[in-house]
Amino acid sequence: MKIYDISMNINPNIVVYKNKEDKKPQFATTKQGYVYETNLTLNLHTGTHIDAPLHMIENGNPIGDYDLNRFITKAQVLDFSHLKQNISANDLKQKQITPNTFVILKTKNSYDKDFNFEFVYLDKTGAEYLSHIPVIGVGIDALGIERNQPKHDTHKTLLSNNIAILEGLYLKDIKEGNYMLLALPLKINEAEAAPTRAVLIKLPKAE
Amino acid sequence: MKIYDISMNINPNIVVYKNKEDKKPQFATTKQGYVYETNLTLNLHTGTHIDAPLHMIENGNPIGDYDLNRFITKAQVLDFSHLKQNISANDLKQKQITPNTFVILKTKNSYDKDFNFEFVYLDKTGAEYLSHIPVIGVGIDALGIERNQPKHDTHKTLLSNNIAILEGLYLKDIKEGNYMLLALPLKINEAEAAPTRAVLIKLPKAE
Repeated sequence: MKIYDISMNINPNIVVYKNKEDKKPQFATTKQGYVYETNLTLNLHTGTHIDAPLHMIENGNPIGDYDLNRFITKAQVLDFSHLKQNISANDLKQKQITPNTFVILKTKNSYDKDFNFEFVYLDKTGAEYLSHIPVIGVGIDALGIERNQPKHDTHKTLLSNNIAILEGLYLKDIKEGNYMLLALPLKINEAEAAPTRAVLIKLPKAE
Repeated sequence: MKIYDISMNINPNIVVYKNKEDKKPQFATTKQGYVYETNLTLNLHTGTHIDAPLHMIENGNPIGDYDLNRFITKAQVLDFSHLKQNISANDLKQKQITPNTFVILKTKNSYDKDFNFEFVYLDKTGAEYLSHIPVIGVGIDALGIERNQPKHDTHKTLLSNNIAILEGLYLKDIKEGNYMLLALPLKINEAEAAPTRAVLIKLPKAE
């Protein structure tokens, strides 16, 4: 079985949102004889993670309220690596999106080595379009699914329409097409987000 | 698809090994307007997690060296909830264990509400027996796979035989039988362990 790992590696040098110090993970390691142990301090939005409504909506649901079926599911990778700024409804209309799948947006972000303040994002019109199809989740190869939208319209549109957001993917080696997605969030039920190990498994072409 | 969640919930009251303060997770939450964000400090051996050889073997391999196929795999749940102290080779011989599966040991630990200093564990003879079958991993419903073995013989036997250890499972609702296990470790490639969201999916009975 060919497994494509689309997760970021959590280490002291991981790229973090806007290069902010407080988003960098901290490792504290002890070694007693041969017993090696680590304490990790991690912002729940560093690396590959899933956002729940609580992150951006007052009294929204926490991560534990998602049904896990949503994270063991068919996924559709859409290649938008030709876009420079954002993904809009008009861009999404060029693709045939299957309802009730988890959509994964591949952009040129996957080729960035450092944090890119001009990362490609899903704009409000794109979020509204996906909410109408509807899809069950949206993944993207950026640490945020949006920027330059002061009221966080993309987050709010998706989260209020019960669409999960999977951020911090790494999709350089992934081609457009259909996959099985496994992206179970760490069980931190009361939190607004959870770090996630996300992988894709290639499915045969639809008949 | 019926998904059995066998993970512990990470929260401030989670049961930790020997009730040690330094194993308790710490949550720091900020709220700016409607934006809610958490920093989590977590010992990598708190809650459901996978151990790699580096945890107990000098210069052993870290968690990132495991092939992910090992964590998307057939698993066999063995019910040992009648045992009071430990699981030995003699106990394991009562079961028909399929080679190259991930074995999951259900014990009376799953019924404990607090940390039980006398938790049921896999002893050295059991670890050696499983290494000879061989299995690809061993899971248990305890925060340690062993106790009372000063040289950590169970860890060392399993890890030096390339058998992954999955600790901190919660198996109260799980019956003996065959399942699919999904237990991808968080991607912290250089670490000695990683927190894991582990689930079982019921498979039809073997023909």
